[in-house]
Amino acid sequence: MSTAATPASHNSQQCLTMADLSFLFAIIILTITSTAIIFPTPILASQQLNHQFSNRAPRFLSKHSNSIKTQEEEQKRYKYESKYFYQQLDHFSFLNLPKFPQRYLINTDHWAGPERRGPIFLYCGNEGDIEWFAVNTGFVWEIAPLFGAMVLFPEHRYYGESVPFGSREEAYKNASTLSYLTAEQALADFAVLITDLKRNLSAQACPVVLFGGSYGGMLAAWMRLKYPHIAIGALASSAPILQFEDIVPPETFYNLVSNDFKRESTSCFNTIKESWDALLSEGLKKNGLVQLTKTFHLCRELKSTEDLANWLDSAYSYLAMVDYPYPSAFMMPLPGYPIKEVCKRIDGCPNGTTILERIFEGISIYYNYTGEFNCFELDDDPHGLDGWNWQACTEMVMPMSSSHDESMYPTYDFNYSSFQEGCWEEFGVIPRPRWITTEFGGQDIKTALETFGSNIIFSNGLLDPWSGGSVLQNISETIVALVTEEVSCEVTFYAHHISRFFSSRSCWPSSSSTAGLSRYCHRKNARGAHHLDLRPSTPEDPDWLVEQRETEVKLIKGWIDDYLGEKKTAFSM
Amino acid sequence: MSTAATPASHNSQQCLTMADLSFLFAIIILTITSTAIIFPTPILASQQLNHQFSNRAPRFLSKHSNSIKTQEEEQKRYKYESKYFYQQLDHFSFLNLPKFPQRYLINTDHWAGPERRGPIFLYCGNEGDIEWFAVNTGFVWEIAPLFGAMVLFPEHRYYGESVPFGSREEAYKNASTLSYLTAEQALADFAVLITDLKRNLSAQACPVVLFGGSYGGMLAAWMRLKYPHIAIGALASSAPILQFEDIVPPETFYNLVSNDFKRESTSCFNTIKESWDALLSEGLKKNGLVQLTKTFHLCRELKSTEDLANWLDSAYSYLAMVDYPYPSAFMMPLPGYPIKEVCKRIDGCPNGTTILERIFEGISIYYNYTGEFNCFELDDDPHGLDGWNWQACTEMVMPMSSSHDESMYPTYDFNYSSFQEGCWEEFGVIPRPRWITTEFGGQDIKTALETFGSNIIFSNGLLDPWSGGSVLQNISETIVALVTEEVSCEVTFYAHHISRFFSSRSCWPSSSSTAGLSRYCHRKNARGAHHLDLRPSTPEDPDWLVEQRETEVKLIKGWIDDYLGEKKTAFSM
Repeated sequence: MSTAATPASHNSQQCLTMADLSFLFAIIILTITSTAIIFPTPILASQQLNHQFSNRAPRFLSKHSNSIKTQEEEQKRYKYESKYFYQQLDHFSFLNLPKFPQRYLINTDHWAGPERRGPIFLYCGNEGDIEWFAVNTGFVWEIAPLFGAMVLFPEHRYYGESVPFGSREEAYKNASTLSYLTAEQALADFAVLITDLKRNLSAQACPVVLFGGSYGGMLAAWMRLKYPHIAIGALASSAPILQFEDIVPPETFYNLVSNDFKRESTSCFNTIKESWDALLSEGLKKNGLVQLTKTFHLCRELKSTEDLANWLDSAYSYLAMVDYPYPSAFMMPLPGYPIKEVCKRIDGCPNGTTILERIFEGISIYYNYTGEFNCFELDDDPHGLDGWNWQACTEMVMPMSSSHDESMYPTYDFNYSSFQEGCWEEFGVIPRPRWITTEFGGQDIKTALETFGSNIIFSNGLLDPWSGGSVLQNISETIVALVTEEVSCEVTFYAHHISRFFSSRSCWPSSSSTAGLSRYCHRKNARGAHHLDLRPSTPEDPDWLVEQRETEVKLIKGWIDDYLGEKKTAFSM
Repeated sequence: MSTAATPASHNSQQCLTMADLSFLFAIIILTITSTAIIFPTPILASQQLNHQFSNRAPRFLSKHSNSIKTQEEEQKRYKYESKYFYQQLDHFSFLNLPKFPQRYLINTDHWAGPERRGPIFLYCGNEGDIEWFAVNTGFVWEIAPLFGAMVLFPEHRYYGESVPFGSREEAYKNASTLSYLTAEQALADFAVLITDLKRNLSAQACPVVLFGGSYGGMLAAWMRLKYPHIAIGALASSAPILQFEDIVPPETFYNLVSNDFKRESTSCFNTIKESWDALLSEGLKKNGLVQLTKTFHLCRELKSTEDLANWLDSAYSYLAMVDYPYPSAFMMPLPGYPIKEVCKRIDGCPNGTTILERIFEGISIYYNYTGEFNCFELDDDPHGLDGWNWQACTEMVMPMSSSHDESMYPTYDFNYSSFQEGCWEEFGVIPRPRWITTEFGGQDIKTALETFGSNIIFSNGLLDPWSGGSVLQNISETIVALVTEEVSCEVTFYAHHISRFFSSRSCWPSSSSTAGLSRYCHRKNARGAHHLDLRPSTPEDPDWLVEQRETEVKLIKGWIDDYLGEKKTAFSM
């Protein structure tokens, strides 16, 4: 986007500042997958938006929004040292490959040290610059002092500064150089790094607790399962580890997004649903792309209708993920209840406003809430997320469809053949769509894990479209689900922030859990967004969020106490 | 060896026939590691046997002994079909590599089928021809009908017929082609194969139970830990998963072998201990190698004293592993109590017999008990075990030393630098000695697994030198150790075979276990040998072995019952 006067009318709320901007990052990542995979085909059979396979999914991290370089406030807030560890490029073969430097951020200010067996809190780096994750995962920084814990943020290979073959260009050159960008290799990186670090610090007896959100949450859960000797537990926030193969219906994600809009306004839902045909018709007209460029205030002339459709498509998905009940910002500064605001705009235009003009008004809430941009770039990648396209084309194959009736997106049935074809064209690689479930499981997860494994928290908000592919029920006494959902509750409580309130009740604990833990539920308006629990606390946090974090702290403390056993260390928590 | 008249005097026991020959194979494999790694340096400082790094460790599977091709009896006993499945060469990267055919043996004669959720018994193929393992793992075949189970023996990659790059020659050509010969890849092969097979048979709901002995036992245990969604439990027999890094003292293995000899005869122990200097002195003499060739009846002229020393060294280790109380044969036909017989020969020679002549007399029990050979080949590999040398030089780094006082072998301190140097010379590869413990754990295994994982049986005999690196204590209620050990018990019981008896008592269960399971103990003479429990049953099996197998069947039945839960299938077990 380019900064300038406000092309989109501006919401009256003025409480947002750039300093507010924070978190919500991994959201993107996973959404990118979905948009990359599915671009939905509209219903209009004779004039379909060609399903253009695209791993060049739209980028939602504008260089002007929330790049790590601009997050000075957050960077001041969290102190860490950047270090590098030389990793094997392929942990699972013995090819003579060059090692690569893995960056990790470390803070030992509050660490109780090896003699007192101070814990190590390790955040499993997602598919982006690790500093970005570090400054947007306030929860870990905030609770570390309570535990006397070291904080460690290792970067995921092929992202940020942790690229093999000497440069990003070389690493991303072709399928051969990208070949080692896999989740298994990333987990092995974490395992080797922490093992080496602990040995160097004589900290072998210090318990490691894993954290992660979104893809990072998937890594945290998988790491606890695969490396129980390395980490004693994992908090996996918004981790859709079941979004593979046929474990959940492929329509799940887009249905959840669509329902989030429909619950605010049926007419809004309908307008969006109708807009794809309008878009297609406009694009097919003579000078249609020029007209669309004007209507949507694009900085460069639109090359294809699909590019614009992807841009809109993704915004709706992100809005569903970050539909928080209070102003927030990670990638984009947004008002509270952003979907409600989007729909207000779409529905509130005067008679005579075209569908596409309404869509632009609505989408401007997402892309230009501060009103600082006068045109939009459809393709930005300030956080270097490109690698996810490769991951989506190799092992992270998440089949997604868009249903005819329930979805506001164009109808689309996931077609593996064309997906595979697209990956071959894009990268010269053949996906392995069944590999993740073979390697990590997922099918019938309760049976597989109810007597296996322990100490994993799966936290989710049910309004988050990724929740549909996540673990939403306790698996055992120690593999538990903390779920923020809409239920009929009776007690009203007020949030900390005087200007907002929520009609809600904490229903925890319920009777359904053997461990006294169950879904953490509350009434509607308590938006369960994408890994909200990992965000830094704010005075605006609703009670249910405060309570959820307290529950997480309590569970983590339990893991550590169990690990330390009788021999309690001197430091008190 | 070459068949001919009997050069070694022959034991009066005549109960051995070639038809008796069976099992004991993986024994070899692991021993090969040790001999490859350590060849011990003698004490005599000025005239040391040069520590010649050798991954070309002596081969103990003579082409005339127990090659699979000669095991017609066993082959008739077990019926199976050989099939092939095309596997990824590197499961953990996306290099465009050629797939390779993995052989697997399958028998569905007794399988209850998918509707009745008949179990699948999967033996994790070790480092050799899978048919060899199949015909020597009678336990699995014998119990399968009781469970209505399918029997599956997948071959380990790079062994038998499961070689990549089209031929054994190509696969073993260099470090690059050998690069994918790792345990992790082998486990992934098993996981992919069984997942695909179950899908093709609509048998997704059928429980998989893993079996394995020696290295195969390590794979079985690791697979249960890494792929709990694929297998519900594992019987890991004689699986030294702790023989890595510094988890157990490096002297453990050779001390156990040495103690097995010392307990039979101190003078025998001393003769062997002194023989290394005698060997070295002889080898240094003019025509010494020629004389040694004669003394030891070698078919070809000895090239170095070390080759002979390795040959002797390995025989002692195998003898300790197979020191059964009744005649047995897998690789070599042996009398009952073979160490006792060896020592009788060494001690019983007339005065004036040289140390080396005594050693030859003793060792002939091992290499020529049937008396059919008149000369010996030091280097044979009928079962294609070469790959283990690569594995030992990459991830299966098992440090072993020989102590000055307790060991009858030459004193030797494991030296990682020279080990690494040897691997570089041999294969152009640098070992990763800490990788196995990073990937699979092992350090402080009880703490790591006592609240994680379930359904693993570690069975061991304490006379087996590999038991020192195995799991000998229950880790949890469901990760249990069945240990055959020497303890003071009071009850005498008689074995099935009238000609043998054992003074023994089953002490199971003891009070130390929360699950009612503990070490399975008995008095001395009940030799706990290398994965004896996996062997076919014989009329000579002692009661403790019969009981141990019953315990294993009971535990496995418990896993399956738990898995099937309330919905019991129609077939009765």
